[in-house]
Amino acid sequence: MPRLVAGVDLGGTTASLALADLDGTIVHENKIATESYGGPQRVLERIAEGILALAEEAGQKPAALGIGLPGLVDMESGTSRFMPNLPTNWVNVEVSQILSALIGCPVKLINDARAATLGELRFGHGREADSLALFTLGTGIGGGIAIDGKLRLGPIGAAGEFGHLAVLPYGPMCGCGNRGCLETLISGPALTGEAVRLVRSGRAPILNELVKGDISLVTPKTMAEAANAGDDVLKATITLRGEYLGIGAANVVMIVHPEIIVLSGGVAEMGELILEPVRRTIRERVSMVPTEAIRVEKSQIGERAGLCGTLALAADTVTGEPS
Amino acid sequence: MPRLVAGVDLGGTTASLALADLDGTIVHENKIATESYGGPQRVLERIAEGILALAEEAGQKPAALGIGLPGLVDMESGTSRFMPNLPTNWVNVEVSQILSALIGCPVKLINDARAATLGELRFGHGREADSLALFTLGTGIGGGIAIDGKLRLGPIGAAGEFGHLAVLPYGPMCGCGNRGCLETLISGPALTGEAVRLVRSGRAPILNELVKGDISLVTPKTMAEAANAGDDVLKATITLRGEYLGIGAANVVMIVHPEIIVLSGGVAEMGELILEPVRRTIRERVSMVPTEAIRVEKSQIGERAGLCGTLALAADTVTGEPS
Repeated sequence: MPRLVAGVDLGGTTASLALADLDGTIVHENKIATESYGGPQRVLERIAEGILALAEEAGQKPAALGIGLPGLVDMESGTSRFMPNLPTNWVNVEVSQILSALIGCPVKLINDARAATLGELRFGHGREADSLALFTLGTGIGGGIAIDGKLRLGPIGAAGEFGHLAVLPYGPMCGCGNRGCLETLISGPALTGEAVRLVRSGRAPILNELVKGDISLVTPKTMAEAANAGDDVLKATITLRGEYLGIGAANVVMIVHPEIIVLSGGVAEMGELILEPVRRTIRERVSMVPTEAIRVEKSQIGERAGLCGTLALAADTVTGEPS
Repeated sequence: MPRLVAGVDLGGTTASLALADLDGTIVHENKIATESYGGPQRVLERIAEGILALAEEAGQKPAALGIGLPGLVDMESGTSRFMPNLPTNWVNVEVSQILSALIGCPVKLINDARAATLGELRFGHGREADSLALFTLGTGIGGGIAIDGKLRLGPIGAAGEFGHLAVLPYGPMCGCGNRGCLETLISGPALTGEAVRLVRSGRAPILNELVKGDISLVTPKTMAEAANAGDDVLKATITLRGEYLGIGAANVVMIVHPEIIVLSGGVAEMGELILEPVRRTIRERVSMVPTEAIRVEKSQIGERAGLCGTLALAADTVTGEPS
């Protein structure tokens, strides 16, 4: 039987778990709710139980595990540092050590967006590009860069924090302490917050009809549907926010000149409504780096990119490949 | 006799030429005025004559030559693409081919700020750091990044265009077509332009005294002298513009997490007046990447960084080292 590795993608409310072979082919997987489990210790115990249950199904323990967390982690020590989007306090939790003791294999910790970048690099657009920059556009905004076919992590795995690029440096305060970050402008909540204002003020009648007045149904998906069906004010605000994202992407282009910019996460599901203003803004704003050949595309592997990345990270630990 | 290589740093009005051994020790050098020579062909001929004169002094021809140009170049083909700060049209000039035919050795073309980054990496702060980001702050603003001890150039050598990061995306138009670029805010002319307004409106009395009313003497150097001697409005404007630079530097930190940010060029000669607001702004605005260990310093080799970089690039051609 081929050796297996494990991957975990931990979000605000759920954790995706998987066992895969060293090529990344998933053999067993599961999703668990984590919200009700309280603090980090209990969440990590629940994750370990889930992984051990998958291992029992597979008839073997994983040779290594990769886990992605949504925030600042120290990859070198395997410690979480700052998780602004998790419900409880994850400052200085020795994630790798705790999970390793519970499961009995080496554990590699990584930021979830960097994991998604590694996933996209190995299994998505990266198969045809040597360098890429990936934006994860969800509740928070993360990012990652790959250069010369390798994930670029920086000394502790913190490089690629696109969500906190100041696009309007004197704009809204962000949870990170900076102002006018992309996360304040084009995250899921930033977009739906604006759409709800438009619904309430009668400026998004099609969206209002679509969600039948229930604003909890206002999501990037319903917003896109309404904008494409003729809600023009809504479409204009999506375009404007796509241009903000384009300003951030233009900065990334000028600093690293990637071959492809990949958008993933719920907001990317809006498709051309977001991709077009990003492409146009890059063309309009960048002349000192040639942009004709730079592609701006949706992720090829979507929401599974993060999980695939943690599996690749775990496999690299076993095979000795540098990520 | 050791083998020699040649380096050329071409600016708007002068070109610095040097011959050095493969370790970068300069054995002969010269500076020539280029302004009056007209178009690119004549300027390149004059450079070739200058290099051949140095070669005659040294008793040997260079084994390779590196040349830095202030703008977008295609390193792969050795062609200049777009030089917004040169007095004549340098679009699509086959620089490497022309110089190679005139001098009789391989010629490598590079953007001048990337050359300065390579110089700083090999002979300056890079001796104690594996990764760095360098800002050249002169008539224009350029940049470059080094990661894992290597210059990061991108597919054609365009990565690192810090001067055109949009720091105020709805701010002043830049010559590059973008808006609110660092170059519009903290280049030498942007700073001295503001200082001249202050002199004329009586708000910079010490500077006015210092230059005896001759505004052509308003330079970053005299501005710093006056600000340190008590011109408080002037000092406040330098601080504000240093904060703009800090916003751009914060973006670079979030994308690549370098160990050190290096400032070079005339504006960097203001020292702490500029370094302090950059350091403070990075600390204030970046929390998703740890900033305590990130240093912000003046270049260790100053205005010679570009020339040293072209010599290193030429030496790499001879020894087969990747730059």
